[in-house]
Amino acid sequence: MGKKLTPRSEDYSKWYNELVVQADLAENSAVRGCMVIKPYGYAIWEKMQAQLDSMFKATGHQNAYFPLFVPKSLFEAEEKNAEGFAKECAVVTHYRLQNDPDKPGKLRVDPEAKLEEELIVRPTSEAIIWSTYKGWIQSYRDLPILVNQWANVVRWEMRTRLFLRTAEFLWQEGHTAHETKQEAIDETIQMTNVYSEFAENFMAIPVIKGLKTDSERFAGAEETYCIEALMQDGKALQAGTSHFLGQNFAKAFDVKFTNKEGQQEFVWATSWGVSTRLMGALVMTHSDDQGLVLPPKLAPIQVVIVPIYKGQAQLDDIDFVVNRLVNDLRLAGISVKYDNRDTMRPGAKFAQYELQGVPLRLAIGPKDLENGTIEMARRDTLEKFSFQLEGIVEVIAQNLVAIQDNLFKRAVDFRANHTTEVDTFEDFKKTLEQKTGFISAHWDGTVETEAKIKALTKATIRCIPLNNPQELGKCVFSGKPSAQRVLFAKAY
Amino acid sequence: MGKKLTPRSEDYSKWYNELVVQADLAENSAVRGCMVIKPYGYAIWEKMQAQLDSMFKATGHQNAYFPLFVPKSLFEAEEKNAEGFAKECAVVTHYRLQNDPDKPGKLRVDPEAKLEEELIVRPTSEAIIWSTYKGWIQSYRDLPILVNQWANVVRWEMRTRLFLRTAEFLWQEGHTAHETKQEAIDETIQMTNVYSEFAENFMAIPVIKGLKTDSERFAGAEETYCIEALMQDGKALQAGTSHFLGQNFAKAFDVKFTNKEGQQEFVWATSWGVSTRLMGALVMTHSDDQGLVLPPKLAPIQVVIVPIYKGQAQLDDIDFVVNRLVNDLRLAGISVKYDNRDTMRPGAKFAQYELQGVPLRLAIGPKDLENGTIEMARRDTLEKFSFQLEGIVEVIAQNLVAIQDNLFKRAVDFRANHTTEVDTFEDFKKTLEQKTGFISAHWDGTVETEAKIKALTKATIRCIPLNNPQELGKCVFSGKPSAQRVLFAKAY
Repeated sequence: MGKKLTPRSEDYSKWYNELVVQADLAENSAVRGCMVIKPYGYAIWEKMQAQLDSMFKATGHQNAYFPLFVPKSLFEAEEKNAEGFAKECAVVTHYRLQNDPDKPGKLRVDPEAKLEEELIVRPTSEAIIWSTYKGWIQSYRDLPILVNQWANVVRWEMRTRLFLRTAEFLWQEGHTAHETKQEAIDETIQMTNVYSEFAENFMAIPVIKGLKTDSERFAGAEETYCIEALMQDGKALQAGTSHFLGQNFAKAFDVKFTNKEGQQEFVWATSWGVSTRLMGALVMTHSDDQGLVLPPKLAPIQVVIVPIYKGQAQLDDIDFVVNRLVNDLRLAGISVKYDNRDTMRPGAKFAQYELQGVPLRLAIGPKDLENGTIEMARRDTLEKFSFQLEGIVEVIAQNLVAIQDNLFKRAVDFRANHTTEVDTFEDFKKTLEQKTGFISAHWDGTVETEAKIKALTKATIRCIPLNNPQELGKCVFSGKPSAQRVLFAKAY
Repeated sequence: MGKKLTPRSEDYSKWYNELVVQADLAENSAVRGCMVIKPYGYAIWEKMQAQLDSMFKATGHQNAYFPLFVPKSLFEAEEKNAEGFAKECAVVTHYRLQNDPDKPGKLRVDPEAKLEEELIVRPTSEAIIWSTYKGWIQSYRDLPILVNQWANVVRWEMRTRLFLRTAEFLWQEGHTAHETKQEAIDETIQMTNVYSEFAENFMAIPVIKGLKTDSERFAGAEETYCIEALMQDGKALQAGTSHFLGQNFAKAFDVKFTNKEGQQEFVWATSWGVSTRLMGALVMTHSDDQGLVLPPKLAPIQVVIVPIYKGQAQLDDIDFVVNRLVNDLRLAGISVKYDNRDTMRPGAKFAQYELQGVPLRLAIGPKDLENGTIEMARRDTLEKFSFQLEGIVEVIAQNLVAIQDNLFKRAVDFRANHTTEVDTFEDFKKTLEQKTGFISAHWDGTVETEAKIKALTKATIRCIPLNNPQELGKCVFSGKPSAQRVLFAKAY
């Protein structure tokens, strides 16, 4: 604990790194690019997992678990997918260590224990899962398969940042198999909607649902749906993706089913995932120069109570009142911590819980006891209020709702103020530099134009929004005709 | 679905393998020694996880997540631990694939992308965690650290069996750090008790708590506590372990703290874990020749209801009654499935749910509707009863409790009948061959005797039971004096 965070205005990236470490969310590990998720950070992830998991189950999915390793021959079966991930794969080549004859007490890889076929540590599980589904699917009666997996995956990223881009990360990956193309597309869209609902109603992060362009699509997918969020520094963050995989993996792994007419057909597939990257989005959407700001629905501690006292007698009186309050709050389903440690001053406690983003802080001292009051501080607005203790549980519940709503509204307003319609490339560049955020502009639909804009500005097409208004116009770069605007931004 | 299981009496091991696959718990994957945990099997594991996790949290632990990989230099730091796992390690040596110039469309490891230091896929996480704790611990105020992790680990086993011994498995590993030796020992014992309570009260598996001998101890531990269960074939299964690690890892990673007197001391450690191996124990303790038998507390589906009908009109009448019952059962916290699929006959459904171990099966037909009755079949005893529909929710709840109790009692009786006190080596060998089970015998306390007995009989010392009665005697093998009996058995 302790030292102040670098202000966001000074160095947003430094602020982020300091916040993640100081708020006890995560830290870098001894393994290049891999993070340690600390208990407080993991508790937030657990709340996210629990909510997502219940939403997956409510839409008919079941969890399962598939191997960490993918044999090279399976990995390379779907060529585009393999090509997309080949350059960032951790590869297991040996299965034993032995004493190093040259260095007593040290170990080395046993050259005799070389695998006949290398194993890839899964960067994503389509290959291993579709090689398994081949054994599960014979007839239309075996479909649909609606399976999700919570797992770790590894992508050997060269430049890593806590939560946002790490070599190993935690995620869920849904992998479904269907009789018809339409059913698979419906599933892909359904899961995009589930992600959007989760982001907006639980993380309090407004997102744009859209389609990726050819060059940003998942390797091996026919179509990638995504949800895109906007961070406080005006950069976009892809918060979740849902892929319509067509019959690509069914063909690569020869997965056919007998349809109701008795004919053999290839199976239709989807996959969809969100990861611990969402933790980064959560931090960068709501937090401030004092530290983390958490939406109440995902806060491991929703309310912290700090006693202000001198001497044991005063503390005993406060304990008596607070213990009853704690009990009442728990009965109301509110998670509360009473921090009456005597090894830390109230001011230091205030700073710690502010840094860790606890939505409501209550303080109570001898004066409050006399007056039957309690002080409440809102983390989102940093406002303080004094309330009567009588009826305080209801007031707390209302304030938690108000904070959740306010965070979402703030983020919606921020995005509205940072989404700009632009019709010339000059304005495009100026907006990107000065105002940042999403730029809504016409695009001629070619990979070439997209690549040139990226090379010149670092902005990419984040998505073609779903239900996008059709509007004739000219491409902001090439001047060629265009039927709709798309969203550009610099992105994480 | 479909073909009958090999009877246990004919080939227990074959019965187990068939059951695990046919009941849809797990199957072998395309990766040597790695399994796919199927949705039904995973749903049982999720129930086990949820219960254990709440017990860990109730004893003050928090979850966190540490990297999958351990750099070789950290792996080898605690020598005994490293030696214990070196021979079964998956090793990552490269971080990239490239197109194979000799085989178009195929990939090969990019020789340029060799890691400077090899990474071990964690077989257990003491090394990576204690190298992290070094940064977390300065003073006694930072202690205790009470952390648990749910993760996958890899041990390159040569002979694998679904759930019981797989190259990759899922587990939880607790890793705690303490000021004093006594506090660490207390934690070790506390977690042994948590495991024992979980095994007995939830899995309905009676276990013996005990200490491992020197030769069976965890590599790097000062003392290993375990819970040992007895399977139906008379072989023991180690169901969980809790290790007092002394200061071994603190010394290997130089983790010291300033105590209350201002002096530097090494930190005391524990670690403890249970794994998907428990799924194997669950299967082998309760199941029969018809299939899986599940204790109601861990059954994903506690009650299944099957309608017996001819024609839509009859089904409509049954649906009407059953839908209300389903609702009432859910309100009572009972998980229920109403299987009114018209693509499968009732007999086939009965067989499926018997195979999958659903504790209670209800069947209802037109006669039942007339009489206001319902038929109930208990999976544990295969008995059938007819009950009045009126008040059936209460009857179902009572029967679930009765099944849970009966399974535990049956297992306790089985163990009592398969635990034999033996005083000569002749009897030892005869009992092991003919009666099987636990053998309680005097042992002279030497590694040599233990090794010779193992070589001659394949029996090992499963544990020295906690609170073991002290009793003078002679070692069953060497005839040397002994102060107590220990438990021998052949083991999984």
